[in-house]
Amino acid sequence: MSTTTQYNVIVVGGGLVGSLCALFMAKRGYQVSLYEYREDPRATEFARGRSINLALSNRARRALQEVGIEERILKCGIAMKGRYIHNINGKNKSILYDPRTRQCIYSVSRNYLNQELLQEVERHLNVRTYFNHKLINVDVDQGRLVFLQTKNNTTIETYGDLLIGADGAFSTVRRALQQTPLFNFSQTYIDHGYIEMNINSQSGRAMVPNHLHIWPRGEFMMIALPNLDYSWTVTLFMPFERFKELNSPDKVLDFFKKFFPDSVELLGKRQLVEDFANTKPSPLVSIKCGSYHVGENILIIGDAAHAMVPFYGQGMNAGFEDCLLLDSILEDCNDNFPVALKLFTESRREDAHAICDLAMYNYMEMRDLVTRPSYLIRKKFDDFLFWLLPTTWIPLYNSVTFSEMNYQRCISNRKWQDKV
Amino acid sequence: MSTTTQYNVIVVGGGLVGSLCALFMAKRGYQVSLYEYREDPRATEFARGRSINLALSNRARRALQEVGIEERILKCGIAMKGRYIHNINGKNKSILYDPRTRQCIYSVSRNYLNQELLQEVERHLNVRTYFNHKLINVDVDQGRLVFLQTKNNTTIETYGDLLIGADGAFSTVRRALQQTPLFNFSQTYIDHGYIEMNINSQSGRAMVPNHLHIWPRGEFMMIALPNLDYSWTVTLFMPFERFKELNSPDKVLDFFKKFFPDSVELLGKRQLVEDFANTKPSPLVSIKCGSYHVGENILIIGDAAHAMVPFYGQGMNAGFEDCLLLDSILEDCNDNFPVALKLFTESRREDAHAICDLAMYNYMEMRDLVTRPSYLIRKKFDDFLFWLLPTTWIPLYNSVTFSEMNYQRCISNRKWQDKV
Repeated sequence: MSTTTQYNVIVVGGGLVGSLCALFMAKRGYQVSLYEYREDPRATEFARGRSINLALSNRARRALQEVGIEERILKCGIAMKGRYIHNINGKNKSILYDPRTRQCIYSVSRNYLNQELLQEVERHLNVRTYFNHKLINVDVDQGRLVFLQTKNNTTIETYGDLLIGADGAFSTVRRALQQTPLFNFSQTYIDHGYIEMNINSQSGRAMVPNHLHIWPRGEFMMIALPNLDYSWTVTLFMPFERFKELNSPDKVLDFFKKFFPDSVELLGKRQLVEDFANTKPSPLVSIKCGSYHVGENILIIGDAAHAMVPFYGQGMNAGFEDCLLLDSILEDCNDNFPVALKLFTESRREDAHAICDLAMYNYMEMRDLVTRPSYLIRKKFDDFLFWLLPTTWIPLYNSVTFSEMNYQRCISNRKWQDKV
Repeated sequence: MSTTTQYNVIVVGGGLVGSLCALFMAKRGYQVSLYEYREDPRATEFARGRSINLALSNRARRALQEVGIEERILKCGIAMKGRYIHNINGKNKSILYDPRTRQCIYSVSRNYLNQELLQEVERHLNVRTYFNHKLINVDVDQGRLVFLQTKNNTTIETYGDLLIGADGAFSTVRRALQQTPLFNFSQTYIDHGYIEMNINSQSGRAMVPNHLHIWPRGEFMMIALPNLDYSWTVTLFMPFERFKELNSPDKVLDFFKKFFPDSVELLGKRQLVEDFANTKPSPLVSIKCGSYHVGENILIIGDAAHAMVPFYGQGMNAGFEDCLLLDSILEDCNDNFPVALKLFTESRREDAHAICDLAMYNYMEMRDLVTRPSYLIRKKFDDFLFWLLPTTWIPLYNSVTFSEMNYQRCISNRKWQDKV
């Protein structure tokens, strides 16, 4: 293929996966246009919002390394060498991910990571970024995208040699693919939603550092990830039904005093009540697609292709791995897009299904435990962490988190171990 | 609820299930508006098209009886008392559905049935039908529908107290529901497509009457259903890949001579070649939804709610049963729509999933047989019909087809029999 040809690549979505993908494509020498619905995050005040799932593990690190920014990102991340379990009886404990190697995962702010990626993207002269551009129509046959410029309410049309949808779990690009012939698809919401809270810098110093904190409570669970300024981002996962019941300040406080007694002071009573009054719990969805491409030049990656429930901490990691894989496939097949897209689907689909299933399996295991006799649950509470730390699955957790082995192989290895 | 209130009900889709539903709603005394994308079928020449799945069995008959037109419809149907199996070696045989009771299913023309239903609907003064109205937007929160009048390219907006989407497997109403929070959904296409052919009245007299004819060939299969004029509607199910290979008249004829030798003269060589040249095989999809309603007044029924692959002959039957169920629920809860819709989802979902699974199971059983050693396949070919007649499943087939027992109960009964 001639090196004088410059391909036009459109990336839809300027979140984590979209920005990283644009960076990979820019490094390949393509002409890249990156479109994002929201404002430029660098131009806005810090917005609270989605932050679960931001534990960088080896797969994401490997991708960041490839584009040369791993070190810079890790410097602004906080190493978490293990989980810190808050038991309801006050007996807390630290459980290292891997006592032998002391491997870590890294807590990183979604917003910080996104900004760094965008900054890095814009250092490339062959990239243009367009914020406040909402994708409103995808013509799959023509390979045409229509965006609404939300600032002035006008629409623009654009074409590319390659269109990459990295527009998240509720992807507009995927919605168009779903309407094409023979496109297999499923979306599964779970009964749990989540809300996000915060432990401020002052209170946060009282938390044991360098851990992912977990308050496992069977039917529901709370976690906290550290930020650089000693504050912590806290997420409560709970069935929507139970969220609904907490419809008064008293009920909220009673609930926390009963189930998360040691967190009440940390979160702050007033803040807690306010958070519950102002926040609607967000849903959690698992997405599977039979194919990640349609035709010769449209592809979806990241959550758009395989959103998963967050209970294996692999959502972003899998999305970043998509970018790495796409880049290496494009390299191997000399930028032949139709061949590359087919290869991407073929080599990625089973793996992505595998990690979605693992995440869902962890969720169901957690949820179903509560139906067992209570002494057994108590035992589980005391002796194990069965959710983010499915003890029987530790070798699997570690190969998923600390290796770059195919997700599928992680599972089949595990089956082999079971037999032994 | 006051009898002076007249509810406005909008039914989207004037196909079989939509028309029957409108009829039920009209009989309840509601003000009914029936919108259909296509032309009025009574005003157009007979259009060839979808006709698989038009074997009326007990569930559909029960619904037609309830609206008083069962007898009229059956008079124009042809009783099929069994399957007539065309083996590749020419040894054909008749297998009755139920030798003891000689129960029948009825072959009915989709077009005829649709026209009769529409005729019956329009006898009610509280119904208005709108053809050439394409649904282009659904505002779930406002309960508003926007239709494009395809004849003059203008749009109209409409509201109803109850909105029923009976707009088929590719439902526009469902597409809107899919975007609402927590809506679980899956669409699964199978590797097989189908094309439709015809045995004309003259040749058709040579066919053994009053049977559903089947040419089972493992990886693919052909069936024929009788029409009143002695013609037969023939459907070939085959993997898309194999359809693709038949890309010349010679290849088509060779294929038929090899696999369906006794059908070549019946179908007519010239017609056969023409049909293959002019027809693209149609896809087959299985649809499952976690809910059939959203909010307080939007419901989907029939294929829009639970399209299934056609290998159990229950698609239309299940759709008609939906209408019967909805009517009885509305009766029981005094036209309280929010309550009725919730009850409909709760009482219908597991059953609909069950019949979708049965149909898919039959498909997979058929498809997977071909991977077994060939002598075994031959044996199966000779001795059994394993697809539309899964011999081991006859009791199940009969309870699905000749009873109105819940689909779920049919299956659990069967499990019990297996144990014995």
